Amino acid sequence: MPQTNLSSSRRNFVQRFSAGLGALSLSSALPRLAAATSKGKSGKLGIALVGLGNYSTKQLAPAFEHAKGCYLAGIVTGTKAKEAVWKEKYGIKPQNVYNYDNFESIASNKDIDIVYIVLPNSMHAEYTIRAARAGKHVICEKPMALSVAEGQSMIDACRENDVMLSIGYRLHFDPNTREIMKLAAEKPYGNVRYVQSEVAFTIGDPTQWRLKKDMAGGGAVMDVGIYCIQAARYATGEEPIAIRAQEFKTDWEKFKDVDETVSWQLEFPSGAYSSSTTSYNMRTNRLYVSYQKGAANLEPATKYTGIKGQIQKRILDVTPISQQARQMDGFAQSVRSGTPSIVPGEEGLKDMKVIEALYRSLANGGKRTLI
Amino acid sequence: MPQTNLSSSRRNFVQRFSAGLGALSLSSALPRLAAATSKGKSGKLGIALVGLGNYSTKQLAPAFEHAKGCYLAGIVTGTKAKEAVWKEKYGIKPQNVYNYDNFESIASNKDIDIVYIVLPNSMHAEYTIRAARAGKHVICEKPMALSVAEGQSMIDACRENDVMLSIGYRLHFDPNTREIMKLAAEKPYGNVRYVQSEVAFTIGDPTQWRLKKDMAGGGAVMDVGIYCIQAARYATGEEPIAIRAQEFKTDWEKFKDVDETVSWQLEFPSGAYSSSTTSYNMRTNRLYVSYQKGAANLEPATKYTGIKGQIQKRILDVTPISQQARQMDGFAQSVRSGTPSIVPGEEGLKDMKVIEALYRSLANGGKRTLI
Repeated sequence: MPQTNLSSSRRNFVQRFSAGLGALSLSSALPRLAAATSKGKSGKLGIALVGLGNYSTKQLAPAFEHAKGCYLAGIVTGTKAKEAVWKEKYGIKPQNVYNYDNFESIASNKDIDIVYIVLPNSMHAEYTIRAARAGKHVICEKPMALSVAEGQSMIDACRENDVMLSIGYRLHFDPNTREIMKLAAEKPYGNVRYVQSEVAFTIGDPTQWRLKKDMAGGGAVMDVGIYCIQAARYATGEEPIAIRAQEFKTDWEKFKDVDETVSWQLEFPSGAYSSSTTSYNMRTNRLYVSYQKGAANLEPATKYTGIKGQIQKRILDVTPISQQARQMDGFAQSVRSGTPSIVPGEEGLKDMKVIEALYRSLANGGKRTLI
Repeated sequence: MPQTNLSSSRRNFVQRFSAGLGALSLSSALPRLAAATSKGKSGKLGIALVGLGNYSTKQLAPAFEHAKGCYLAGIVTGTKAKEAVWKEKYGIKPQNVYNYDNFESIASNKDIDIVYIVLPNSMHAEYTIRAARAGKHVICEKPMALSVAEGQSMIDACRENDVMLSIGYRLHFDPNTREIMKLAAEKPYGNVRYVQSEVAFTIGDPTQWRLKKDMAGGGAVMDVGIYCIQAARYATGEEPIAIRAQEFKTDWEKFKDVDETVSWQLEFPSGAYSSSTTSYNMRTNRLYVSYQKGAANLEPATKYTGIKGQIQKRILDVTPISQQARQMDGFAQSVRSGTPSIVPGEEGLKDMKVIEALYRSLANGGKRTLI
């Protein structure tokens, strides 16, 4: 989860760019650097974090301590006060500190191989495209965009500029989650019959951007419901073909703009079925999978502090790892080797397709909707 | 769960009575015995099991060994071969053995205080009413009936004949389940925000009565979905006001007559929300409750072998108990003291109202339906 609050300067910036991609001024003719070669094969790749909210501050920046293939090389922030703090704390060179006005000049910075977009959802497409045009490889936080169309434009921009795009799906780098994926691929317990995935928390500050539709694109569905969609997809190893969705609201003031609680069910080609609930007004965090001949359970299934669970009777390893370090290292390795990310833009786009179908189903009173 | 197979004689009987209550021949003018006084206040009350399928054979009969306030006094079976086996195994007096033709004469049997209906769902109303008219207190397995109207007729018949009616909701007598009920009543963690309850299993024999709509009234919803409805109701301590339901089917041959997999969501007056899935074609068994300030989880939540779980960090007691012995003892005590059952007919009727609304929602493509 990215930050839950915006500094006032970033908020102003967001307002300035609320017109969306039309505000793009960067020329696509700008000279582009070759894909990360600055550190050589043995060196660490430099990552610049764009947006220094909670997720950057409390999760990503500390994770670099555990990273082996990348380091925190730069920052992009609209808050002057943060610059000094971050420079001091993480030893960031003055020339690697950018704001939203001079971001384009990052193109000529050889220290920065990868740009990590940790901005509000509405800015993901814009900044991913800017970074791609600046010749930088991109990690973009989830949800990748506000729509399938935006997501596609990000993929296209990265392809056109010959940079790699990865979505911030840290759980694909978590060993316990990977065990669940392996069960879908190797089928030791047969086909998946059922997936129950739910992620919900009680949201705080009612003024935060997550509760504004123009910045978040939606409520709990966009923020944590996407984890449930991911989970149903990686637990089955299949793409869903239909969805039915239901909305429930108790606080019409706080959630006047976005969804508070949404349930949905997915149908998969093999006959697997999934049921999910997400919410900003309750607590749950689980992935349960029923196979033809067994079951697996992760709980919590998405927490930064560790994914716990069991497969049949076997309790999964609880040795702490840094999901974010593994994720960033994984992408650095992809960049270094020229191998596509295991969570490329296309992976994010698949979730966006489900989310769009989910909202269509909601708009149609819960009717079964093809994805 | 009652038996999963019908003996051929019982099946014939079912067919004979498929015309329903119109087939009743018992006169309501038949002399009725006073409520259980045969054993006196210190003696055990006699129970006759009606229907000797799996549930009677594997759960109820063995449970009497743990019962303190009741004993297995009689049986009603259409299978001649079972008579000798049961008489021998449980020391049942020859005069306490009935079949479906002479069932009415149970009225004059002072050994029988309580009749426990363990027949297919379609026979619950008929046999409950017959037993009531014979002056016997009744325990009826869940679901109490095929419809609200049938359920109401059972309540009315018991009231008119001055006998008590109880539904076979054994979990109300399970200590761990009672802890969940207590949390709803005492609210140490505040109001319930969310309940996730699901019960599903993979059903065997495709010829069994559970897969025939005229005998079962429905599929997984009627059989184990009712546990989820119960759970949502006792976990919140509230009656739901609206439902949305979704059906999913993979085996159109096996489940041509009844529902295979159904999900639904309930809305409660306090703002609590519940999500459930039930199925005859997957495995899950859980009750999760998210309170304003905490959580509880039972898993398995409905198994005969014991209800396990935790409230916040506290692991619940796993000392084995006989749910069925406690349930039958509880009702025997109600009968003895003249105190209504904690799971009276009205409790069963509340679930039937939800089930009828569920099927209405399914028929309307999942639309929100008032209960």
